[in-house]
Amino acid sequence: MTENERPRDECGVFGLYRHPEAAQLTYFGLYALQHRGQESAGISVAREKDKIFSHKGMGLVHDIFTMDDLKKIEGGGGSAIGHVRYSTTGDSTLTNAQPFVVQHRGRAYAVAHNGNLVNAHILKSELEENGSIFQTTMDSEVFLHLFVKNLKQGNVLNAIQKVVAKLEGAYSFILLTCKGEVIGVKDPHGFRPLALGKLNGHYVLASETCAFDLVQADFVRELEPGEIVIINEDGVTSIMPDNPPQKKSLCIFEYIYFARPDSTIFGRNVYEMRKAHGRQLAREAHVDADFVMPFPDSGNYSAIGYAEESGIPFEMAMIRNHYVGRSFIQPTQSMRDFAVRVKLNPVRELIRNKEIIIIEDSIIRGTTAKTRVQALRNLGAKKVHMRISCPPHRFPCYYGIDFSTKGELVAAVKTEEELTRFLGLDSLHYLTIEGMLEASGVENPENNFCKACFDGSYPVDFDPNLSKQCMG
Amino acid sequence: MTENERPRDECGVFGLYRHPEAAQLTYFGLYALQHRGQESAGISVAREKDKIFSHKGMGLVHDIFTMDDLKKIEGGGGSAIGHVRYSTTGDSTLTNAQPFVVQHRGRAYAVAHNGNLVNAHILKSELEENGSIFQTTMDSEVFLHLFVKNLKQGNVLNAIQKVVAKLEGAYSFILLTCKGEVIGVKDPHGFRPLALGKLNGHYVLASETCAFDLVQADFVRELEPGEIVIINEDGVTSIMPDNPPQKKSLCIFEYIYFARPDSTIFGRNVYEMRKAHGRQLAREAHVDADFVMPFPDSGNYSAIGYAEESGIPFEMAMIRNHYVGRSFIQPTQSMRDFAVRVKLNPVRELIRNKEIIIIEDSIIRGTTAKTRVQALRNLGAKKVHMRISCPPHRFPCYYGIDFSTKGELVAAVKTEEELTRFLGLDSLHYLTIEGMLEASGVENPENNFCKACFDGSYPVDFDPNLSKQCMG
Amino acid sequence: MTENERPRDECGVFGLYRHPEAAQLTYFGLYALQHRGQESAGISVAREKDKIFSHKGMGLVHDIFTMDDLKKIEGGGGSAIGHVRYSTTGDSTLTNAQPFVVQHRGRAYAVAHNGNLVNAHILKSELEENGSIFQTTMDSEVFLHLFVKNLKQGNVLNAIQKVVAKLEGAYSFILLTCKGEVIGVKDPHGFRPLALGKLNGHYVLASETCAFDLVQADFVRELEPGEIVIINEDGVTSIMPDNPPQKKSLCIFEYIYFARPDSTIFGRNVYEMRKAHGRQLAREAHVDADFVMPFPDSGNYSAIGYAEESGIPFEMAMIRNHYVGRSFIQPTQSMRDFAVRVKLNPVRELIRNKEIIIIEDSIIRGTTAKTRVQALRNLGAKKVHMRISCPPHRFPCYYGIDFSTKGELVAAVKTEEELTRFLGLDSLHYLTIEGMLEASGVENPENNFCKACFDGSYPVDFDPNLSKQCMG
Amino acid sequence: MTENERPRDECGVFGLYRHPEAAQLTYFGLYALQHRGQESAGISVAREKDKIFSHKGMGLVHDIFTMDDLKKIEGGGGSAIGHVRYSTTGDSTLTNAQPFVVQHRGRAYAVAHNGNLVNAHILKSELEENGSIFQTTMDSEVFLHLFVKNLKQGNVLNAIQKVVAKLEGAYSFILLTCKGEVIGVKDPHGFRPLALGKLNGHYVLASETCAFDLVQADFVRELEPGEIVIINEDGVTSIMPDNPPQKKSLCIFEYIYFARPDSTIFGRNVYEMRKAHGRQLAREAHVDADFVMPFPDSGNYSAIGYAEESGIPFEMAMIRNHYVGRSFIQPTQSMRDFAVRVKLNPVRELIRNKEIIIIEDSIIRGTTAKTRVQALRNLGAKKVHMRISCPPHRFPCYYGIDFSTKGELVAAVKTEEELTRFLGLDSLHYLTIEGMLEASGVENPENNFCKACFDGSYPVDFDPNLSKQCMG
Repeated sequence: MTENERPRDECGVFGLYRHPEAAQLTYFGLYALQHRGQESAGISVAREKDKIFSHKGMGLVHDIFTMDDLKKIEGGGGSAIGHVRYSTTGDSTLTNAQPFVVQHRGRAYAVAHNGNLVNAHILKSELEENGSIFQTTMDSEVFLHLFVKNLKQGNVLNAIQKVVAKLEGAYSFILLTCKGEVIGVKDPHGFRPLALGKLNGHYVLASETCAFDLVQADFVRELEPGEIVIINEDGVTSIMPDNPPQKKSLCIFEYIYFARPDSTIFGRNVYEMRKAHGRQLAREAHVDADFVMPFPDSGNYSAIGYAEESGIPFEMAMIRNHYVGRSFIQPTQSMRDFAVRVKLNPVRELIRNKEIIIIEDSIIRGTTAKTRVQALRNLGAKKVHMRISCPPHRFPCYYGIDFSTKGELVAAVKTEEELTRFLGLDSLHYLTIEGMLEASGVENPENNFCKACFDGSYPVDFDPNLSKQCMG
Repeated sequence: MTENERPRDECGVFGLYRHPEAAQLTYFGLYALQHRGQESAGISVAREKDKIFSHKGMGLVHDIFTMDDLKKIEGGGGSAIGHVRYSTTGDSTLTNAQPFVVQHRGRAYAVAHNGNLVNAHILKSELEENGSIFQTTMDSEVFLHLFVKNLKQGNVLNAIQKVVAKLEGAYSFILLTCKGEVIGVKDPHGFRPLALGKLNGHYVLASETCAFDLVQADFVRELEPGEIVIINEDGVTSIMPDNPPQKKSLCIFEYIYFARPDSTIFGRNVYEMRKAHGRQLAREAHVDADFVMPFPDSGNYSAIGYAEESGIPFEMAMIRNHYVGRSFIQPTQSMRDFAVRVKLNPVRELIRNKEIIIIEDSIIRGTTAKTRVQALRNLGAKKVHMRISCPPHRFPCYYGIDFSTKGELVAAVKTEEELTRFLGLDSLHYLTIEGMLEASGVENPENNFCKACFDGSYPVDFDPNLSKQCMG
Repeated sequence: MTENERPRDECGVFGLYRHPEAAQLTYFGLYALQHRGQESAGISVAREKDKIFSHKGMGLVHDIFTMDDLKKIEGGGGSAIGHVRYSTTGDSTLTNAQPFVVQHRGRAYAVAHNGNLVNAHILKSELEENGSIFQTTMDSEVFLHLFVKNLKQGNVLNAIQKVVAKLEGAYSFILLTCKGEVIGVKDPHGFRPLALGKLNGHYVLASETCAFDLVQADFVRELEPGEIVIINEDGVTSIMPDNPPQKKSLCIFEYIYFARPDSTIFGRNVYEMRKAHGRQLAREAHVDADFVMPFPDSGNYSAIGYAEESGIPFEMAMIRNHYVGRSFIQPTQSMRDFAVRVKLNPVRELIRNKEIIIIEDSIIRGTTAKTRVQALRNLGAKKVHMRISCPPHRFPCYYGIDFSTKGELVAAVKTEEELTRFLGLDSLHYLTIEGMLEASGVENPENNFCKACFDGSYPVDFDPNLSKQCMG
Repeated sequence: MTENERPRDECGVFGLYRHPEAAQLTYFGLYALQHRGQESAGISVAREKDKIFSHKGMGLVHDIFTMDDLKKIEGGGGSAIGHVRYSTTGDSTLTNAQPFVVQHRGRAYAVAHNGNLVNAHILKSELEENGSIFQTTMDSEVFLHLFVKNLKQGNVLNAIQKVVAKLEGAYSFILLTCKGEVIGVKDPHGFRPLALGKLNGHYVLASETCAFDLVQADFVRELEPGEIVIINEDGVTSIMPDNPPQKKSLCIFEYIYFARPDSTIFGRNVYEMRKAHGRQLAREAHVDADFVMPFPDSGNYSAIGYAEESGIPFEMAMIRNHYVGRSFIQPTQSMRDFAVRVKLNPVRELIRNKEIIIIEDSIIRGTTAKTRVQALRNLGAKKVHMRISCPPHRFPCYYGIDFSTKGELVAAVKTEEELTRFLGLDSLHYLTIEGMLEASGVENPENNFCKACFDGSYPVDFDPNLSKQCMG
């Protein structure tokens, strides 16, 4: 699906315990997690008694940090955490960039958060009753207020456990104390990924394993739902929840769209999962055609799976312009759909007189897809079929993904038939929910995945009017 | 092949005759030709009596031009030419950015050039004998000196013909006069592509047809070797050379590497040519393996061809990080090969215990390939075979490509066996020259293509000590 | 005195009640107050129910705000406050830029502060005991915590009165509520200036009257020490303190150095006060000379006063280079004192064989003055006398000025005789404390001015180890 | 006079023969000459056989050059020349930035030019007849074409003499050869200043002596009209013209406006000359008043002279805002004349009920002066008299100054009486031509100065239709 329409994930997080190049390695970790958030990024380092040094900015990691910026916060042996963010609220200001850092009784704490608390508004009200003031709209600030209130004699673990007991929703936190402790927390349903790695003996936490690959850390394991992991001079201590929920609620959309294909999350490689979805799609909705092609780049792997399963040739028939900047001059009159066309150009000679199957990973508004299909028709495509590698999105997500920022969920308002006509297709098929779960290769998938955005069965209750106020 | 090692093409050119949005359309044309030069770009517009307005800058098209810049030069009905450049000399300054513009007797002329004159140093000496002074190191300046000297009573065509008679080497020029005439010139051997299109009745020239696609122009035809095309109020006038060479010398490396897959050059689509090379490679050097993969993105299409011909599955087993900036902080100690690894990460789960065939489009220095092969081995690849979709580069190009800027031609100094060991491969095969020509599907390919970089048979003589002084 | 050595004032503040161009006028107000703080600036606007919109940045006002930035926060009829800041602590980050904005029970409040609380560390400790967390090192955050804790049923005035009762030190606050109320508060000793004006019926507050001149507001009056002024739909309401201190403590250094000569503060025009100091200096320490000159620009007005009183000609014998940027390349070897010399160059022909009196407004470290005196000697000055238009600084300020950031107070460690030798002068005289007070033209000046930095008699007690922790 | 209205000088030039820090010292020299041109600047260095390295840019010296830029061109023992430029034509592009550099027969030459050739268009036509092409609209390019054509066997001096014989108009050139020779040339009438200095044994050339002060060079002497000075390994060689003109034509406006007050040009210090003009003005047009004030900064020194001669007190009653950026947001409705008022604010308390004499250095359009006079009236000034320290400008300059870029010469179209009313003054007086000459203190001033802009007596003939085509 296209950039403008794509769902917005809330964040990627990274943490590293005491390393001579902690800030720099965190910078590289964020580089690898950039796909999880392109709006702001930050790094916080605990290197001296009682203090935490931070650098944050708006934009991409490689624009925000210079070598000088890193040198200023790098301590030589400190611990660091980092964060990339894609605002899910309208409030995309530097104030909301993470890690969020506070001072309390002369000590500093920093937190980086991925997810969405569904009871943040309730917790915030309670805090304000007691005189707390807030500067941001972030869950992280709520977390830190609660944390500090529960902190006695510096017992960090105890305070975290008390806070976690109050939180409801989806979250993967990394907390950094000015003593250099790095603490990872995953919510009891395990909505968002968070993994533990090891880099030459130094423990590291990251949202996805692709960050370990880049910093050349070894993947140790993923955190369990509800697990708290404390990394300090005693190594790694793990605390499991007393009464875990019966069912996990792993976000299946991480596989379909968000996570990088080279990451392993929730126990399975993303690339392989996508191919499995493509194979399933071929089984569910075979059609004869000259070739299968993805709309780059998101449908690539499902398309390969579809081609393999169906035996229909695979082609990359739309060519990406590698030099498209983030903004460009808008054509004034003569050219329609320039923004769509400049990024990808179909190979005219491949398309003419062909029957084509397009694999997409999802359709949100559909206007870009419509333009692209029309372009193929204009070049003489005989038939154009589309296969979507996930079920239709019909329900909003309250656990950290904003599908609707830039428009309606087209699948919620149009029937498949209407959509086929709207997009100008010869046929259209969405992967079924059953097919998606079966293709996952997991036993009892119903007990493992959250698929609320497809069927509306929300695993954690919430007040739909309020629970999106604090996010990210 | 990787960015650092890649051969440098010299330029892309674009021109448009009288259009209300001539500057803006040229901007978009350059956008589509950006792959042919990322170092500087410029647009010149003839819109008023005797004057030419230009905007040039260093960097990418979308960084150089703002809407304001375009408005300043746009005239509403003027003619425009544009240029993107990748310096093949060390001299990458704004002074050398094109189009090159001069004043002569109150009239302005601008020229955009793609290619390399092998006798530029001789022509320049002769001019200096007569008191000419030069400000740049560009062939374009030599061309304009000669042009102006031959210009009597404003007969532009006559002057061009006299100049062309003196030029030796590879060139595709577009000349713009202050009267708004747009003139395309291709050298008699036809080394570099140049095509004619039509946009709502306005004629347009471009290095590649992908530029026509973006501005929604129709492709009319390619210029013939030696052809001069004059676009003015009388439409298009074509002048063919009196004594054309017996053989064409179309640069076959444009197919292999430079041109965009969605372009048609020298009569054939580039994507299809690359697939044909991949198929030929599979025929020449089959090997059993679990899958075929490209090193993205340049080997993609040959890899698809190889997979189809061999029946071995195709995988995209290296994942691109879409957010890598043009520069980033260099890791100081802990991480080797970061620059190589940050762009592409192999999918660990696909690689383990597999036999793999990698398709590359060429090897220049080989250090990046070596690092990538090693990465696959580290992940547990059982066997790694490499197939190169062109013959080994053993000779320098004097017609506009600089293979050696950043290092030696590894194929010129190592045997295939040495290279196999150097790269850490189980087997290595280069496409044969014969295979390459045969796969081209052209009759008498020997009489059509320049393949001097592979076999040293140079179609136009030159003095190797001097002929690279003026380039671009 | 020179830029590097100059004392750092903490801030300038500006506020405007409901105006169609509130943000823009605040921008211009800050422009006029820029001399009070060049490190960061910000504007906050209350224009919609419950919300406050802000734009802040590091640097100068004209670099921080674009028209787009202002448009984004401008509401058309909102109220606005603004702030310029010169960090007096080492912490010069965007986090500390003001106005400081918080959310509490769904309502936003913003505050802009000029001064220094001497009991901020005590107030902060008490707040932290009760679970408050802090993100900045600013007094403003302490103020807002206290304010919110005292806020019941939205009675803003009551809350402010309760907070003020706890604050000790120097402060001039402007508070903005999301309802659009603008509230000005001056501490009971009246250390820092704050004035009320009126712009076409709209009330405005500003640190100095020069801001009224620029926005073309009329000067109404200055706030009294201890006064709280509430501007809302009922107009202006003034609340005076119940038990005001017996003595005022107006910062006399505002006259000598900080305030702009075109401002009226504490009831008197700054230009005229400086001339009066110069006249007094001439009476206290006359010496024969060929001419009197200032070291531009700060000594200009005292020098004119000195020249008038003494009858000695006035010359501007050091010429300013108007094009010196904020930074420049440091000469590597050949040139000493370049940074000093580049800004001002003496007029060689005026200096030779002359006896000269230099008027300075203060000496902090003295190294720049030494260099300049040496330059005059090198050009052949026969005698060089210096007269300082204020008494020697011997004591630190705890009420908002940091004299010592970049070095020692030279007057505190050297006798006048030592200093005369150190600076290479023929004679040196500081204005006496008595002369300064007498020249002020105020009755009972001892009961009106704070002159602690000259004589150590601090009007408000403090703990010298801690009271500088929170500033600005 | 105000920035918008001020006449535009064309250039400042600087040159230094072989010094380990030649580029850096030239940078500082340009820093000191910045007032002579703020549009573009450049430095060229001859450090290696046959080559010249340059860095040029648009804007101010301190924005254009970074330490890295200087390091790239600095050679360690090379010669350097530099240039600052204020475009007198509409063509303010980087192409026209100087030094202008060319290659000829493998050797490079660079030239920096201050002045205007009145026969440039004729010389250019002749060159074009012989096939020369031009890229810029600068006199420097004409000079270099002629120079190269006259260059035989590398005899640089001979070539320069032949060129000079053809040039007509005002010029001060510095030429740099790739051998490191630095050659200064002043036109036979001596319109523009150019001086020789010495820095630790290294010879240096500069437009004004203030540049020597900054780089700590000693002033040796000014070049004579028509003199050619060659600096090379033999030291300094001077060649005087065979038939010098009977009369010098030193630009008297350099004293009045352009040159810095701390410079000595044409044998006299600028500051003292301005004071002498002020004194003369007091003698010519005395009026009783409370005080004399300049409109800063240009009238400062004449105002001091006027005050001294008249015995009327001197005040600096308009306060400059030192933080006004080069651009700022334009107020949309509420504030008129903001651009005028933001820079200078009158001191309200000084003005009220006073009779005031304003000293200005010239009036071009008069609109700013009108606004400022009105502001004084609004503050209650009883009477406002204006005295102008030069005669009225009634004629255009063809020797390098563009008075009329932004408007008409108000003095050419209005009588003194009309102007008095237009500006809202009680009285107005311009310095008389006779008074100006007499005040100069030079014998036979008629034979020494060009005063064509005041009386139309042009010392060098020209074709008024054409002679402004090539400038700078």
